[in-house]
Amino acid sequence: MMDEHTIRQLTRLDRTIHEPARLAILMTLLGVEEADFPFLVRITGLTRGNLSVHLSRLEQAGYVEIQKTFVGKKPRTVARLTEQGRERLETYLHTLQRLSSVNRDA
Amino acid sequence: MMDEHTIRQLTRLDRTIHEPARLAILMTLLGVEEADFPFLVRITGLTRGNLSVHLSRLEQAGYVEIQKTFVGKKPRTVARLTEQGRERLETYLHTLQRLSSVNRDA
Repeated sequence: MMDEHTIRQLTRLDRTIHEPARLAILMTLLGVEEADFPFLVRITGLTRGNLSVHLSRLEQAGYVEIQKTFVGKKPRTVARLTEQGRERLETYLHTLQRLSSVNRDA
Repeated sequence: MMDEHTIRQLTRLDRTIHEPARLAILMTLLGVEEADFPFLVRITGLTRGNLSVHLSRLEQAGYVEIQKTFVGKKPRTVARLTEQGRERLETYLHTLQRLSSVNRDA
């Protein structure tokens, strides 16, 4: 069986990251310098409304930075991971890694 | 970056399993034939009330079987993974494994 410590860590997972839509956004941002709104919609498959809500939540948590600029008269929204967001995501992924590599024949 | 397919899978993760408390219960059951209520309380660190609620939810989903018996006059509740529960958990862990082993220097 998994050790007790690892199992208890599961009940303390960072829920800001653990939410599936936000996890999809963060994993997208992990691999790129920055991503604009249409790109995030395309990769995650989220609706624009959902994406917007979850990006705001990630921004409030300090995990993502959002920049709104204009390209000509067209607004452009760009998101990137903050240093804190990257660290928390790494910690989260580390816990998942231990979880998913557990010996399932135990 | 992670491939689009894997990222979209994240937004479709099995939410019955994904909830941290339920994940802790399932990971405990994965490693044992069966577990009684006090054992699950001890390993997961959940309150008795919370454990009860989440076990019912897992039973309703068909992922866990619950047996209530008596030892003398004392009720005893025992939980075990069903075949379906085991399969769904394996699928879930497989997705997590791909997620957490992503090349983070990409």
